[in-house]
Amino acid sequence: MERSFVVTPWEVRGTIDYTRLVEEFGLERLDEKMISSLPDPPFIFRRRVVMAHRDGWVIVERIRTKLPFAILTGFTVSHPKPHLGNRLIADMLSYFQRQGGRLYLCIADIESLTVRGVPLDEGRRRALEEFLPALYALGVDIESAFVYFQSAMPILYRLAARIASIVSSSELHDIYGDVTPGQMFASFIQVADILLPQLLEGPIPTVVPVAVDQDTHIRFTRDVAKRLNARRFTLPSAFYTELTPGLTGTSKMSKSIPSSLIELGEADTVLRQKIQQAFTGGRATAEEHRRYGGNPSICTVFALMRHHFITDDT
Amino acid sequence: MERSFVVTPWEVRGTIDYTRLVEEFGLERLDEKMISSLPDPPFIFRRRVVMAHRDGWVIVERIRTKLPFAILTGFTVSHPKPHLGNRLIADMLSYFQRQGGRLYLCIADIESLTVRGVPLDEGRRRALEEFLPALYALGVDIESAFVYFQSAMPILYRLAARIASIVSSSELHDIYGDVTPGQMFASFIQVADILLPQLLEGPIPTVVPVAVDQDTHIRFTRDVAKRLNARRFTLPSAFYTELTPGLTGTSKMSKSIPSSLIELGEADTVLRQKIQQAFTGGRATAEEHRRYGGNPSICTVFALMRHHFITDDT
Repeated sequence: MERSFVVTPWEVRGTIDYTRLVEEFGLERLDEKMISSLPDPPFIFRRRVVMAHRDGWVIVERIRTKLPFAILTGFTVSHPKPHLGNRLIADMLSYFQRQGGRLYLCIADIESLTVRGVPLDEGRRRALEEFLPALYALGVDIESAFVYFQSAMPILYRLAARIASIVSSSELHDIYGDVTPGQMFASFIQVADILLPQLLEGPIPTVVPVAVDQDTHIRFTRDVAKRLNARRFTLPSAFYTELTPGLTGTSKMSKSIPSSLIELGEADTVLRQKIQQAFTGGRATAEEHRRYGGNPSICTVFALMRHHFITDDT
Repeated sequence: MERSFVVTPWEVRGTIDYTRLVEEFGLERLDEKMISSLPDPPFIFRRRVVMAHRDGWVIVERIRTKLPFAILTGFTVSHPKPHLGNRLIADMLSYFQRQGGRLYLCIADIESLTVRGVPLDEGRRRALEEFLPALYALGVDIESAFVYFQSAMPILYRLAARIASIVSSSELHDIYGDVTPGQMFASFIQVADILLPQLLEGPIPTVVPVAVDQDTHIRFTRDVAKRLNARRFTLPSAFYTELTPGLTGTSKMSKSIPSSLIELGEADTVLRQKIQQAFTGGRATAEEHRRYGGNPSICTVFALMRHHFITDDT
């Protein structure tokens, strides 16, 4: 079978076959049993927009037994404004916070610098003026969270150096493929991010809510954590969302195609135009459409409703 | 002509042809004119153990006009104890300090971690208990110096990230050859080290006294500085020492061959034994030796005298 899609932290291309992706990445599908084990799961879980996990049961068990756990996720500030994809993560964050998790919120300004060339002061501005207010508005409890910038956390950089010291070039290549020095540097920092809660608190189950294209970092982190010090780090868990398709029909809203993307806080008139021009599951003619109905599986407007705007399942 | 030696920051092998090395690296030889322009030069300059430089005239001019300049060098703590090679650098440091330079002394604990696996706490101990006292004893003015650990300098790591963001894999490969992730990580930090005085003080001529095997870092730093911001960074200068040959006849005292190396503060009995077993320029038989005399150019004991122990030229 020909490879028709690519999903890496830095590139998403083609039409994603999620069943195949789950298999290739070695994830576990979110199933009925897990959904019914989660107390009061938000609609993105019920609909399996949150589609897979690694060691998710560890977190379910912490919730059930009311034991502490950490939540960690990172937001890049590569784009000037937050977008709808960030909303899915925000929903997971606030859900796990309500279930007793302590949130570590990473502003990935080093990643935005080394991979996208965003200067640190601009990254800081975007975080403070755009991303953190948006997350707050979306229901994330920012006040109780440990919010930090990658660029201002020396402990992170010491751990990143330790990680760099125990991996080989060929191992990195196996995991990430061809990467730039900036991507390599950012990867070491990101692995350190994911282990930061345990670096600060000691071993504690950690859930990382991310879009599925970020799984490479999770896999690499788990590989590294095993080798660093088993008594110091438990393997982090992760829950993965599907990618919200771009309005132009791409598999992911892309910052490089503005018409594919819905920013949070975008003007009504702009939004209206983008959605009216969106790629839908409509048939070629009105006649065909009446006969066969729309095709929701390729319809970006349907995906918007499923991922974001219709919250009632009934 | 067959390549018979290798000189990189991480590997020195073969019999070094310094004339060819100077040419290949694009250095300038230390000549009579420069030696006579340096006020009261120490014997390692007079004998051209300090054998080459880059933009050394910039520093000579600062000394002549009594204008400020910075001195920066780094000491790895990969070996538990300082050794004779460190002494050559210490001599240059104290000389440039006496000529008005302000010293930045880097403890390269991140490099020792990422390249040699030395834990940061062990690196810190070695620096505080062994290396800094040794440098003090060798005449370096530690009290007026800005002494720092790579692992405790967030500004360094932010600059390293910026450097990682502007270089490509192929460029790195051209400069360093095949490197491990740890070496790559360390290189970005080391370039940031060399620019640190200017990051803190603004543009200022900086002299980096190092052994010639470290030139790759200098070249890379100068390449990067040109691209970062010309108004922010002037190109650093460097003075290079020859490598003190190992007592076993290797081109460099090697931490992996204890009998090749003289540690500072080693016991007399151990020293005596090492030197008595040293590779010399003696001929095969006493008869030949009487007829032709010794061969100083390959004699490690002669090199010890020339580099270290006989300070009087007359």
